[in-house]
Order: sequence, then C-alpha cells, then structure tokens
Amino acid sequence: MTDTDKTKPTKCRKLSDVSEWHKELDIAVIGSGGAGICAAIEAKEAGADVTIFEVASGYGGSTMMSSAEIYMGGSGGTRVQKACGYDDSTENMIKFMTACAGEQADHEKIRIYCENSVSHFDWLVEKGIPFKDSELKERAVMAITDDGLLYTGNEKAWPFNKIADPVPRGHNLYIEGDNGGPLFIKTLVKEIERLNIPIEYESRGLTLIQDEDGAIHGIVIRQDQKELNVKTRKGVILCAGGFVMNQDMLKKHAPLLSRCNSPTGNPGDDGSGIRMGMGAGGTTINMHEGLTTIPFYPPATLTFGMFINSAGQRFINEDSYHSRVGFNCLQQQGDRIYLVFSADDYKGYEEYNYLGADIAGTGDTIEELEQELELPPESLQQTLEYYNKHAANGEDPKFHKAAEWLKPLKGPYAAMDCTPGRGAMYAMFTLGGLDTLPTGEVLTADGAVIKGLYAAGRTTAGVPRRGDGYASGTSVGDVSFFGRLAGKQAASA
Amino acid sequence: MTDTDKTKPTKCRKLSDVSEWHKELDIAVIGSGGAGICAAIEAKEAGADVTIFEVASGYGGSTMMSSAEIYMGGSGGTRVQKACGYDDSTENMIKFMTACAGEQADHEKIRIYCENSVSHFDWLVEKGIPFKDSELKERAVMAITDDGLLYTGNEKAWPFNKIADPVPRGHNLYIEGDNGGPLFIKTLVKEIERLNIPIEYESRGLTLIQDEDGAIHGIVIRQDQKELNVKTRKGVILCAGGFVMNQDMLKKHAPLLSRCNSPTGNPGDDGSGIRMGMGAGGTTINMHEGLTTIPFYPPATLTFGMFINSAGQRFINEDSYHSRVGFNCLQQQGDRIYLVFSADDYKGYEEYNYLGADIAGTGDTIEELEQELELPPESLQQTLEYYNKHAANGEDPKFHKAAEWLKPLKGPYAAMDCTPGRGAMYAMFTLGGLDTLPTGEVLTADGAVIKGLYAAGRTTAGVPRRGDGYASGTSVGDVSFFGRLAGKQAASA
Repeated sequence: MTDTDKTKPTKCRKLSDVSEWHKELDIAVIGSGGAGICAAIEAKEAGADVTIFEVASGYGGSTMMSSAEIYMGGSGGTRVQKACGYDDSTENMIKFMTACAGEQADHEKIRIYCENSVSHFDWLVEKGIPFKDSELKERAVMAITDDGLLYTGNEKAWPFNKIADPVPRGHNLYIEGDNGGPLFIKTLVKEIERLNIPIEYESRGLTLIQDEDGAIHGIVIRQDQKELNVKTRKGVILCAGGFVMNQDMLKKHAPLLSRCNSPTGNPGDDGSGIRMGMGAGGTTINMHEGLTTIPFYPPATLTFGMFINSAGQRFINEDSYHSRVGFNCLQQQGDRIYLVFSADDYKGYEEYNYLGADIAGTGDTIEELEQELELPPESLQQTLEYYNKHAANGEDPKFHKAAEWLKPLKGPYAAMDCTPGRGAMYAMFTLGGLDTLPTGEVLTADGAVIKGLYAAGRTTAGVPRRGDGYASGTSVGDVSFFGRLAGKQAASA
Repeated sequence: MTDTDKTKPTKCRKLSDVSEWHKELDIAVIGSGGAGICAAIEAKEAGADVTIFEVASGYGGSTMMSSAEIYMGGSGGTRVQKACGYDDSTENMIKFMTACAGEQADHEKIRIYCENSVSHFDWLVEKGIPFKDSELKERAVMAITDDGLLYTGNEKAWPFNKIADPVPRGHNLYIEGDNGGPLFIKTLVKEIERLNIPIEYESRGLTLIQDEDGAIHGIVIRQDQKELNVKTRKGVILCAGGFVMNQDMLKKHAPLLSRCNSPTGNPGDDGSGIRMGMGAGGTTINMHEGLTTIPFYPPATLTFGMFINSAGQRFINEDSYHSRVGFNCLQQQGDRIYLVFSADDYKGYEEYNYLGADIAGTGDTIEELEQELELPPESLQQTLEYYNKHAANGEDPKFHKAAEWLKPLKGPYAAMDCTPGRGAMYAMFTLGGLDTLPTGEVLTADGAVIKGLYAAGRTTAGVPRRGDGYASGTSVGDVSFFGRLAGKQAASA
C-alpha cells in the first residue's frame, strides 16, 4: 500500500479480493473536519448508520484550526444580517460570488449555495452554533471580537463594488479571540455525540473497495497497524481535506502556490482523499488554483499605506481583501514588494504581527526611504506625491481605493518587506480537487457518477475557485453546506 | 460514438468487441502535422510499417499554418549559429529554457531536448530543410526575410538576460515571407513519399482499441462514414494537436485563455487526441497553461513605445518577447491597456497590422492624449516624463528595457487600444496535454506506461510550459524533436 510517488491515484482494492469484512455500516465518513461532521449529522438524521474515521488523534481537521467564518446571505438576509440592518438579495449574492470565482465559476454550486444559504444559517443555529446580532465594522483579517457579522471579502472594494451591492456576509461565531474554529467543531461534535455517531481516531483511510462496474462498496481503514475492510451499504464520503501539505502534488498541479511559504491546514491535508477518489475513477478540476493571502492588517490603519513593486509603483487598491492583495503581490514582475506607510499607522502592528515581515527601511522623508529601499530614483517620490495629492480629496484615480482609506501619508515613513520568499507570511491552501455534483456525488472524467462515492470540503473543487477573488468564510461555508448535502444524498442511496 | 460533452475522455473500444480487422500495420500515426510526420519518418526508417491517418483533406496540421521557426542550439551551436558567430553551450540553453518553463519545467525533457538539439538540426538539414547561414538582426514577431537565425524569445530581455547569456536560437527556414510552415511540411512530406508512407486523408481517429490489461492494439478510424478497425502491432502515436479549438475544454481547463480572441491552429485542434489518450487511461498535465501573445510589432520601432494600464503606468519592459508582453497585458488589473508611442515610430505598422488594434487616441502633447484616453489626470504625463528623463541616458530604472530600445518619446503621440476583448489580436494555443515520457510513451496518473500508446506535439505537455516565458520555435521544436523520439520508440516495441 506504500508508494513513494505521492501524486498518484490510490488504487482501489477489488471487491473480489475482499475475503473478510471487519465492519459493516451504511456510511463511512473519512475525516472529522467541518465537511465530515456535517455530512455525518445529516446522514444520521436521515436514518443511516454512520461512522466517522479520522486519521488524527482528535477531531476537527483544518476547520478547527480556522477562524470558521461562514459566508452566508441572500434571501433577504440571515437573522444577523437583518439585525444589523442589511437586506441581501439572493441575486446580489450570486452576482458577487460569481465574480469571485471568475471564469471557472461552478454556476450550479453557486446558485444552490446562495439560494439555501439562509436556511443553512438557520440549521447551524439550530445545531447550537451561536452568532451575535452585531457587526464588526472595523476592517479585519478575522474577527477577534465576538461580533456576528463582518466583511470578509472584496465586497466594498473596486471593481467588485461596481458588480454587486456591498453587503457583509462573513458570519463570525459568538466568541472572543480567534476561537471560531474550535467552537464550531465542538458544538457540532456535541450533535455527533447526541446522535451516537462514532468517531474512530487514528484511523487512516487507505483505499476504496470497488467492484468491477466501478461502484464503491467500502473502504480499507488502517487502525493499530491492521487493515480493516469496512463495508458500506450506502456509501463512502471523502472529507479528507485538500493537498496543501503534499509538496509533490503542489509542484505537479499548482506550481504557483509554491511561491507561498505558509501552508494553512493540518498534516492530514495530504491529498489522500483526492487520491483515493482518483483511484476510483474520479476526476479532478481546478487543481492549479489556491487561496494565497498576506495578512497585512491589523491594524487596519495599514490599509492607508501603499503596496509598491520594485518599480516603486502601486498596483492594487489596498482596501482589497488581504487575499486579493496577496494574489496581486505574487503576480508582480520584479523582485521586491513593499508596504509603505506613515509610521503613525503602524501602531498596534506588533501586538498582532500575523505578517512576520521585516521593516525594510524608514525615513523622515520619502526620498530617504526610497534610497534605503534601493528603489529606482524618484520612483517612490512620484508615487507618493501623486497619491497624496489625490488622497487629500478622497480620491484614488489610479486604483479606486475607497475614500475611507485615503489620506495623505506623511513622514516619518516606514516600509515592510512583503516580497514573497523573504519572510512575510504568504498563507495558502488549495482550491482544486475532485469534481462533484452539488450533492457530493463524485464524477468521472466522463461525467458519470461513481456509485457509492461522495466527497465534500477541500477534497473537492467547491464554490471558492480563485485566489484573487477569495472571500473568507466561503471555504468553511462550502465545507459545511456541501458536507450536509453529501450526507443527505448518501443516506438516500 | 457521438457525445455532446466535448471534454470527456473518449471511451476505448474493447479488444474483445472487435470481430473484424479492416487493416493491420505496425504503427498508426494520428495526424500529419509536424509531430506526426517526424514520428512516421523515424518509425519507417527503423523498419516499421507505418500509416498516417489525417482528419483533414490535406497534410500539415497546425505546423503548416505556423512560421515553423525551430528553437535549437547548445553543444557549441548549430551550423547557422556558428556561422553567425555564436557559441552556445548546452548548459546555457538549459538555463534559459528552464527559466522559460518556470515552476512547471519538465527538467528531463528540457535536458534531452537541449543535449540533442544540434543533432536535431543536422537531421532536419539531412532531410532537406534549408537554413541560410545568416542572422536577422531586426526585432521581429517572425522572420519575413529568408535569414536563418533570429531571437524568438526573451533571451535579451530582463530578467532572462541575467539568468542566461543571450544567444539567438530561433531557426527560420530559407524562404522569404511567412512561408516556413508550408516549406517545412512539404520538405518532410517528400521524405514521407520517398519512404512510401501512406497518408490517408479524411480519416478521423475515433477511439483506441484496448485490451483488458490496458494495452493498445489499434484504433478505430472513420473513413467514408465507415468505421475501420485498424490493428497496430507496435503502437498508435497520437499527434492530433492541442485543444485550442475546443471551447468546452478551454472553459473547463484553461479559463484564462478565454480572455484571448484568436485561437491559433487548425480546426483539428479539438482535443480529440488528448481525449482518446485520456480514454485509454492517460493522464493530462499543465492543462491550464497556454501561449498568449499580442503581435505589436512590426515595425520594431513600436518597441520604443510604452505599454500602459488603466492607471497610466508601465508594467513590463517592452523589449520582452511579444508573448511575455501579451501575458502581462492579460494579468493587469483595470479595464484598459494601451500602447503609447511617438507617431514617428508608427511608420510601417499599417503594412503589417498583425495586431488589428484601433488607434484609441492621438495628441500633440501627452496631456491631450491622456485626456483623450480618459486616463487618471497627470498619470500618463508623469509616466512619460519619468520614462523620457531616463531614456535620454539609455536607462530604464523601473523595468530594465535594454538601451537599444530606449529614447525619449516625443509628440505627436498616439495610442493603440490593446485591451483584451476590444479588438486587438490576442493569439493563443494550448500548452497542456497528455503526460508523456520523453520517448512519447503515454503515462497513466499512476506513472505507468500504457503499452502500445505514444503521443507527441501539442497533444502532450512538452518543453514549452508557460505563456509568460514562451519562445517561438519551442513548440515546433518540441513537436518535431519529440515526434521523432516517439516514432523511434514505437518502432522498437
């Protein structure tokens, strides 16, 4: 079962080679992250006999490590959106999410997601997930207050604000600090316990069990160094995460992500779910894409600053979401990226310092800073002069940063080195995976459904498809929403 | 055999379902472009009984439509390189081609290609391909003189000139006008005729014939509305082009290419070769990438101009190869791309006008032009002022355009609208396809070789892998070189 090439599909065990079943159940869910837990709950509530197999010693997967913001809206608004005074139409949400996903949008998944997003919110609340009816108005990479609602994408930033009416849809759990992930998972695990769904830990999904016609009848699980043949009467649901921890798969499928230094996820995001699905004939899609982000705030005041490239030029409206800024940093020609700001706006940075970037230079005048950064002569000076002149009028004619983030910068100035590969944190995770129907049914390259096989979460290509349009909460949103659909569908088999 | 989804693998016919063989031969080559013809010649010379099946009514494929520049060098230089005074080491060529292919470089293919490039040149010459021992020194999208050597990539442009010593490696056939493709193909077809290799026209490869173990035993060919089962004792070589003419495949696999308006190839580049290979279990790689180019010269004097985005900023050294410029145009934020130039430098443009771009504005002063283009106030003025000041000293501190392309621009000025989607030609073809060994053996996702199946040319992912590093002649170079290797390998089976 071992193989040195970590990019290959994992060959199925033939049903005819199985001489003994060690377990028998309706549905085996592989992975106890957000997708797996939601899938298991729905499947069990629909009457199926479900077990979750988790490779780690504890539950939660990468969802538990995340902030667990959840992107929800449409249908007039969730309870929280309404309480905060927002009216959000489904059409408006579809417009925005379609723009986020760009040319590779999965229109069917987006539509179903947006149409059912408010009822997903209600389901989460019913399961005990708490959301406070309050809005965090401050620009944030994540909420560290307990407020229930915040902007978690490019809704207010050009050009998205021209495509759809800006509405905040990031729902943050009712807990202080960056503790949404653990609360989200623990709350749902209580449901798992209430429903008597077993989670078997240190249980690695090794390979699917397939008959001659391609249908899946079970999965081989390794426990205590033994291989167990687990028979599934209804199906296997692969919720085993993406492949951000698999260097070989990254190199083969998503070469540009290798410019990022900070894979975000748990060690189980090794592509094993995707590879098992491929071994059963599943096809992959969108494998070259990922989230790439640079958490350059808090403090939000750094948004007043200017990102510049090695030509001393700005290249993005800095009020774009951090993932869009990061994506554009990675795309620049040249060998340096700096964030230039007024020293006053730095206050509070060191308290957080998510970014981990070095101060590359300081100067009482912009000329001093320009020289210290070894930028082309007068380049930064011109950029600042132009920027300041228009910022004084609340305008950014070149990049359309919103007036609320515009003010003339003044000395003393400083610059952080945000060049990829020079220390600043570029976080990433993968946005490609198995091609599935919204129901979680895994598709072959032929477009046929593999009987008995389902997948959800980052094992699949879901609603979020591109790094430059990513909004936080669309991954956990996708994970939990489509996890549920997969659970229901498998149970109905 | 028909199917409305043009992205699916083409299911193989089972060997056990074949009741009658209509033809029997050693090797069936699918496609009579550069790859197919070179494969057939080598296979026949190695003693195999070969037939070429061509879907069109005439030979030549997309190679015949191309300029047929061929990228060759290393090993001290080809005869033409030496005659023109260039010494080109294999190491230097490998460095350059590796930089061109970026993170997704296939190091093994590049090494074999570079190590054997001079002997490939000698083989072509032996087959009658004429090259004149002269260099075209003018910057050109393609040679329209009969000169044998020119720069066809970013060799002299920053940052490639810092990575490898610039040497021209684009070999142009000894014929005036853009007539290299027809001459290349016709010359090799004479070899095909001399060797008595049949080319059967209007013969579409429908699907491969596969046994239960996955080995290929033949191919179903449609001729005169009949399906012929063709038995191949040694193998099938898929040389059926890329998928630039298949809108569904482009949308699914290479969404960014849909920003280009000018697919480059013949109608047979419909992905059928790739899909047949997939149907036999072949895996694909690099499917999201393509060449994307904007032929903004001749006249080369337009290189003195400035490409600007909707912020009125430059973003690339304009002496980069046209494909790299095009790629960077496609990457810009904002909704306009202009080429701004001195009217004097326009002379000769209309004679060629490959680009087909509209003049978007003119002005005796740059201020006039800026207003006419509705650029941010003073943006273009500042860009020009900065550019001119340094160009006067032969310097481009922001983007490192070489001194030979630097001079202060002066009025009257004009600008061409090079915005993607607004008329300017963005040519493209695909750089993803079947994953093969350098020998042309097609690989499964498992990394196993499919017995009896080979592929070459744009049906495969070859040496050229990225749009922003593409050099002309690397595709026909790859096509002809790896076509030969596939032919040899199949013949030795």
